[in-house]
Amino acid sequence: MENLKIIKVGGKIIDNEQELQQALKIFADIPSPKILVHGGGSAASAFLERLGIQPKLIGGRRITDAESLQVVQMVYAGLINKNIVAKLQSFNCPAIGLSGVDANSILAVKRPVKEIDYGYVGDVSSINSAAIKKLLESGFVPVFCALTHDGKGQILNTNADTIAAELAVALAGLYQTDLHFCFEKNGVLQDINDAASVIPQITLENYEQLKSNKIIADGMLPKIDNAFHSLKRGVRNVYITNYKALSTLKSTNIITGTKITLQ
Amino acid sequence: MENLKIIKVGGKIIDNEQELQQALKIFADIPSPKILVHGGGSAASAFLERLGIQPKLIGGRRITDAESLQVVQMVYAGLINKNIVAKLQSFNCPAIGLSGVDANSILAVKRPVKEIDYGYVGDVSSINSAAIKKLLESGFVPVFCALTHDGKGQILNTNADTIAAELAVALAGLYQTDLHFCFEKNGVLQDINDAASVIPQITLENYEQLKSNKIIADGMLPKIDNAFHSLKRGVRNVYITNYKALSTLKSTNIITGTKITLQ
Repeated sequence: MENLKIIKVGGKIIDNEQELQQALKIFADIPSPKILVHGGGSAASAFLERLGIQPKLIGGRRITDAESLQVVQMVYAGLINKNIVAKLQSFNCPAIGLSGVDANSILAVKRPVKEIDYGYVGDVSSINSAAIKKLLESGFVPVFCALTHDGKGQILNTNADTIAAELAVALAGLYQTDLHFCFEKNGVLQDINDAASVIPQITLENYEQLKSNKIIADGMLPKIDNAFHSLKRGVRNVYITNYKALSTLKSTNIITGTKITLQ
Repeated sequence: MENLKIIKVGGKIIDNEQELQQALKIFADIPSPKILVHGGGSAASAFLERLGIQPKLIGGRRITDAESLQVVQMVYAGLINKNIVAKLQSFNCPAIGLSGVDANSILAVKRPVKEIDYGYVGDVSSINSAAIKKLLESGFVPVFCALTHDGKGQILNTNADTIAAELAVALAGLYQTDLHFCFEKNGVLQDINDAASVIPQITLENYEQLKSNKIIADGMLPKIDNAFHSLKRGVRNVYITNYKALSTLKSTNIITGTKITLQ
């Protein structure tokens, strides 16, 4: 099977014009087939504020009411996604910007209300891997923003890491999928204040220790949970790394950073 | 050659939730291959106002400064395009929302400054018909918003009628293209106050009379100019019609409204 690389770039890269430019240049040079998934950055919150809508976050997840959804949709699918695609085109990368609505690519169910009502937030229910394969085989490079839909006309906000992981899992039956979570650090750090203290490998076994020692906490937990989830469901490799490390993918498959493995 | 229908729906349909729903249901039932091009409606102006940015229009064309472009981009590609695609998916239409940036589908040049500086407005320079054909052949239904790009990373605002016409012309070499400009009236009217006074056919010859008699004026002029331009460059049929008239396309090729012909 052919190797497919799914690269997720996070919010802090999106927010920094220069870093984004550099990350997209590196992405453009990676051999196809490949998929980019991008987070939202701070633009949505900034626009919500400008419009007098107070952004609400619980545990790092946005509470999306109808008005917020409109803004999130505009910023993710309109502003950021199209800016990224325009930049990739300038690097001769045949990018096609998508939300999970387009080509019916990502179906989700509105998260049921339990203790928290997340509003218009979707949990992925299925990926239209046949449609995505058609796009890849036509030579396009899909660029996904973090929106999904319920198939009945309702757009939903979905975590970008989750979308990247679900795409990697769904396409694992058609490609050898490698999943790269990219951010501004060099990997998962042993010491948050030491940029060089990258943990080279996290296994199911040492993950328990890293968690109980509070070395891994907060926003990194769902990312690593997503990683293990993906590996258990057929994804070949998962990395958490600096986007700069991806420059080696131009000619090799060796990258630095943290590799997540089951064993 | 296969018949390809390019349907353009205008702003007033976009602004009316119920009309839009009905128009999309009718569009969903038209046999493929088909392309939808949509205008912007009043949402962009509304958001510009909410953000304290004064919308500027000259001769019905928006003056797009950098700040306005951001909003236009968000509203066209994020809000309206994704809402339309989500609705079409609910009607089992395999829609894929695109701007001219995506798949490098529509290149444009920033309009040179003469008497008026239109700002970030693009005049179409080329259409990537090979990419669009790939999407059509994969069974997708492209849904275009009115944005283009210059290939160097700059997104540009382009008139939706022009985009529809340029798509029809560019694809005329690969398909028998029919172009349908749809709006809320039944066609081009002899008497603006009589909805039943549809002019069944406008030719190059009677167009001159209709113009000099001021029966056709204002916003209708560029639409009809676009129509003739398309016909001269290989488009098979051009209609200006009520979107409701398209319901006959489900089973026939006969539609009511105004047909534009060279002779």
